[in-house]
Amino acid sequence: MEYSIKEYLDNQKLLIDNLLHDCIDRLTIPEQLKQSMIYSVNAGGKRLRPILLLASFNVYGKDNSIAMPAAASLEFVHTYSLIHDDLPAMDDDDYRRGQLTNHKAFDEATAILAGDALLTYSFEIIANDHQLNHEQKTILLQLLSQTSGPKGMVAGQILDMKAEDHPVTLEALEQIHALKTGELLRFAVYAGAYLGGATEKELQSLTEFAYYLGLIFQVQDDILDITGDENKLGKPVGSDEINQKSTFPKLLGLEGAIEKKQWYIEKAKRSLANANAADSVLMDLTIYFSERDH
Amino acid sequence: MEYSIKEYLDNQKLLIDNLLHDCIDRLTIPEQLKQSMIYSVNAGGKRLRPILLLASFNVYGKDNSIAMPAAASLEFVHTYSLIHDDLPAMDDDDYRRGQLTNHKAFDEATAILAGDALLTYSFEIIANDHQLNHEQKTILLQLLSQTSGPKGMVAGQILDMKAEDHPVTLEALEQIHALKTGELLRFAVYAGAYLGGATEKELQSLTEFAYYLGLIFQVQDDILDITGDENKLGKPVGSDEINQKSTFPKLLGLEGAIEKKQWYIEKAKRSLANANAADSVLMDLTIYFSERDH
Repeated sequence: MEYSIKEYLDNQKLLIDNLLHDCIDRLTIPEQLKQSMIYSVNAGGKRLRPILLLASFNVYGKDNSIAMPAAASLEFVHTYSLIHDDLPAMDDDDYRRGQLTNHKAFDEATAILAGDALLTYSFEIIANDHQLNHEQKTILLQLLSQTSGPKGMVAGQILDMKAEDHPVTLEALEQIHALKTGELLRFAVYAGAYLGGATEKELQSLTEFAYYLGLIFQVQDDILDITGDENKLGKPVGSDEINQKSTFPKLLGLEGAIEKKQWYIEKAKRSLANANAADSVLMDLTIYFSERDH
Repeated sequence: MEYSIKEYLDNQKLLIDNLLHDCIDRLTIPEQLKQSMIYSVNAGGKRLRPILLLASFNVYGKDNSIAMPAAASLEFVHTYSLIHDDLPAMDDDDYRRGQLTNHKAFDEATAILAGDALLTYSFEIIANDHQLNHEQKTILLQLLSQTSGPKGMVAGQILDMKAEDHPVTLEALEQIHALKTGELLRFAVYAGAYLGGATEKELQSLTEFAYYLGLIFQVQDDILDITGDENKLGKPVGSDEINQKSTFPKLLGLEGAIEKKQWYIEKAKRSLANANAADSVLMDLTIYFSERDH
């Protein structure tokens, strides 16, 4: 099982890497912009969001080529958010996954524009895809703009920034991560399942699932920042403590955070069962996310 | 005539100001993000793009309420581009239209996110509008993503940045402005006319019109930077010379630039005639843009 999910992830990652490369490669745009977009798209992401989207599609549908544009689009939105997050005015990171961040490899202006370009292009990919009908495009674009925009991911980023200055409640911390991480995961599972033909009730349950999956993802991030192996993580541990960041272990203690994670996993499992996806790869991915060591 | 177009512009601006305010006001989002978005949306724009969109609609259609979401959406894209353009890493402007720029009134991180939010929200407005059918939404979202993204406005911004370091040819200068300014004008006239029921041939001619209108707009900008009145412009003249910016007067001389503008106007007129819009407000707006003193 441990091996097979890893093999699955590796295969899907390869598929998505090729897809993303093709999407950018076909653009006829100024070379500097293209290089800057390619640089961050190729910067070693695990492609968890598009993998989740395709996995969700496969619970309900067969030929997942129709889900490819949405998968690419989602990863481009994620990439844009990382480029802007890393900027000096935001997290001011020089490295991400062991490579120079976009504004360090190029310059700040180019990084801002590469982020803007990736965000805008993500909408174009869905709007222009020839496999999707107009209604499918509308549903996907509604969902993408909601989950990534001022009511979704961007709201999470603003709230996260403000939370750096002062301690927050567990409820507030959950809200931040639900918006900053959970909303794009919602796009992933909802868009995939919708294109695969899931029912309205199944889509509702998957929306719940995405919420808990985002929290599982984040609580594990916080736990790894305390117990993780720096070599596997590729970044120093203990940085949350130094940065006085609000985390689950800080609010609940390490044991409490681990218990909370278990509770989120139970909720996620129940949501998957309600979505008729209890025995799907989505379950395996949930366990994988919750146990990951990097 | 001079008076009536001014009155028309004032009336339309009021209509659009209210529309934009309502669009942001109805958002339930973190207060800091909302204030930052509102600040730049209310920062005294002339609303030329949405006015152009509605004018284009009215050449072919009657009740322009169906064109309102596209008009709002376009102005939000324009506003986002100004917020990001003003950032220290880009043009590094502290003031715009006599008011502090977004990153000065708030902070850089908030300004980056407010820009991201406005861009994303512009897609949401069209995707979620209840008056438009799925096909109309698709056409508008295709056009918006193309004109504002890596093949459109963002390409123009990258090329414009690179052109600051070295002199460019007239052809390259035209390309920069066609992308940086002309593409959003293309969205304005195309989206308006499409929703108004223009034919494919009329839409083609309007696409040409937008190209020339963008150049008219820019050559007049360059001319005003030499001959303009600082009080009317609300900014110092001669800054292009100081910043060693490539301009039409620098390439062609002041007289040559004025002649070139006249040539663009003739081309714009011919395009409008081909679009069966020779006697429309679009013609009045073209003259107004070409003669404006601020």
